[in-house]
Amino acid sequence: MISIKKPTLVLNSSICHQNIRAMAATVSGNGIIFRPHFKTHQSAAIGEWFRAEGVTAITVSSVSMAHYFAAHGWKDITVAFPVNLLEIDEINQLAAKIQLNLLIESVETANFLTEKLTAECGFFIKIDTGYHRAGIAVSNIVLIEAVLRNAASPLLHFKGFLVHSGNAYHSKNQDELKQIQQFTTQNLLRLKKHFHPQFPELILSVGDTPTCSQLTVPEGINEIRPGNFVFFDVMQFGLGSCTLEEIAVAVICPVVAMHPTRQEAVIYGGSIHLSKEQTLLPPDPKALFGLAVSWDGKSWDTSCLLGKVSSLSQEHGIISLTQEGCNLKPGDLVAVLPVHSCLTANLMRRYFTLDGGVIGMMEQ
Amino acid sequence: MISIKKPTLVLNSSICHQNIRAMAATVSGNGIIFRPHFKTHQSAAIGEWFRAEGVTAITVSSVSMAHYFAAHGWKDITVAFPVNLLEIDEINQLAAKIQLNLLIESVETANFLTEKLTAECGFFIKIDTGYHRAGIAVSNIVLIEAVLRNAASPLLHFKGFLVHSGNAYHSKNQDELKQIQQFTTQNLLRLKKHFHPQFPELILSVGDTPTCSQLTVPEGINEIRPGNFVFFDVMQFGLGSCTLEEIAVAVICPVVAMHPTRQEAVIYGGSIHLSKEQTLLPPDPKALFGLAVSWDGKSWDTSCLLGKVSSLSQEHGIISLTQEGCNLKPGDLVAVLPVHSCLTANLMRRYFTLDGGVIGMMEQ
Repeated sequence: MISIKKPTLVLNSSICHQNIRAMAATVSGNGIIFRPHFKTHQSAAIGEWFRAEGVTAITVSSVSMAHYFAAHGWKDITVAFPVNLLEIDEINQLAAKIQLNLLIESVETANFLTEKLTAECGFFIKIDTGYHRAGIAVSNIVLIEAVLRNAASPLLHFKGFLVHSGNAYHSKNQDELKQIQQFTTQNLLRLKKHFHPQFPELILSVGDTPTCSQLTVPEGINEIRPGNFVFFDVMQFGLGSCTLEEIAVAVICPVVAMHPTRQEAVIYGGSIHLSKEQTLLPPDPKALFGLAVSWDGKSWDTSCLLGKVSSLSQEHGIISLTQEGCNLKPGDLVAVLPVHSCLTANLMRRYFTLDGGVIGMMEQ
Repeated sequence: MISIKKPTLVLNSSICHQNIRAMAATVSGNGIIFRPHFKTHQSAAIGEWFRAEGVTAITVSSVSMAHYFAAHGWKDITVAFPVNLLEIDEINQLAAKIQLNLLIESVETANFLTEKLTAECGFFIKIDTGYHRAGIAVSNIVLIEAVLRNAASPLLHFKGFLVHSGNAYHSKNQDELKQIQQFTTQNLLRLKKHFHPQFPELILSVGDTPTCSQLTVPEGINEIRPGNFVFFDVMQFGLGSCTLEEIAVAVICPVVAMHPTRQEAVIYGGSIHLSKEQTLLPPDPKALFGLAVSWDGKSWDTSCLLGKVSSLSQEHGIISLTQEGCNLKPGDLVAVLPVHSCLTANLMRRYFTLDGGVIGMMEQ
């Protein structure tokens, strides 16, 4: 029983363990490397739950996060973010201690590392197969070869090609998701074929939660890096990656005012708790910021939907209530399933477990 | 000169002081109470800059924030948020020490406080004049009278009516803003007239940065509570509340990749630094997450626009570059003026001043 007075991030550890086990099982025995992304939870303690499932290699999104997890015993870390040249000292410190993998996507960065690296480092070339955020266009063999030539340092070891199909988040159904996966895979396999004679060990690394949780890993892919599945969230629910019951975190929020005439409740719980991320859950044409379900002081119940979080300001949330929700009154608590658990966890900075424990995260 | 390697929130103290002085000057000598909202900066040190301008009364958005500022010598605090009944112990502790004002908007809350308060407290009735977030509809005299009857405790002192015209943020030009202000004022004055015989001292308290920075305070209004003006931001710039030169904070971000074919840069700076808040700057039909301007290691220069932050993921930002921005290269730093400085400050948790100082915020 947790005593809650203000917005509190609660983690259902059983669901979380189950999510980790289920994803680990998808690659168990097929030789595919499971290198989960730890940016979602940012927590050494939750990292141990992965270690218990046999995970030894991880992904992070910043050099700071790599330092944090290295300090907690992780020895094989990929920073899945274009190299930040300004952190070369921190990169060298890490590279001297652990198996560190970097992401290169330009000749400039390859040259810089060739010149400045003081310890051995793996690197992936970041490939763009349609998301258009970062990476070299998969068709740009000339640039890929130029990067490889300029990264020809004895300290730099080419590991393979890495893709994040962020466009998977824009797929409207599983067919579209499959098309994105097929397109990505075909393109990566073509690249692999091209570079295989020179680099017979090269790895194809992919990873996003919608694809990894809904589809099997295609033949020829060597590594997956999903992250969000550890908690899931309403956005993943909307994408079909999880059920509501598989969402492992909720922000428990006090009701502070009721507006029966417009079927709304005001909660203490705003954009500094949930984040301003919104999502659509068709057929509802209006974007929402979370789903409010009942909380009985011990756990939340996804079968009792109280409403949708329809707007957020700094500390206020507005819930558009279901009929069930209209029975709420000031002083009650509701559980809000977040739209994007990575951002919510990042804002809340610690987890309370259902049995009253507290789990910390890395310092900001 | 600040040494910056990763996303860093930088505060230009001179601009900030000037913003505080300018807002203080708007009410100087006219008897209007200036009760600035401290939720934007959440910082005791920045609070002192207000005190230096003669400010003695403040507004906050949570009981936790009231405790923080009370611990830093503030003795007259309004919590501009519907009373969270679950924090009654924390409210009683504060009420015993300082002049604490609460917001009531229901008979339930009035009854609860009458029963549970152990120290004297002021209260405002929260009035809704069209924003429809919280508050009693201004026309609902019956409910207002019921609240007053139920709050008839010797410990509860009625201070007046409080409005937040959040709808000011939806105004498309100054004429619309004026209409919102006039509508709010007329309604409040009518309320005041109605309750004046019973409560001759009652205060009308209003406050939002667009109205307070663009228009003069109307006759009959007794208190203003703007907050965001301390820093301003791109949203306020879009609303006409400030110039770009009056924005006092920027997040300095490293460039990590360039994509000249699509005129984009990737920066280390994402939704965990800037927040997912977006705004429109007509005529551009696309919402943006910040404006990138040049940074020379000592200060930023709003006259040198490098691009618009067009998308954000957890740690990545994409800048749609101007021609000037196309000269950037990995390892360069850019200054991103945030869309919503309250949320950006809340995420970054500390300010670096241009001379290398560090200013803290309240603990989360």
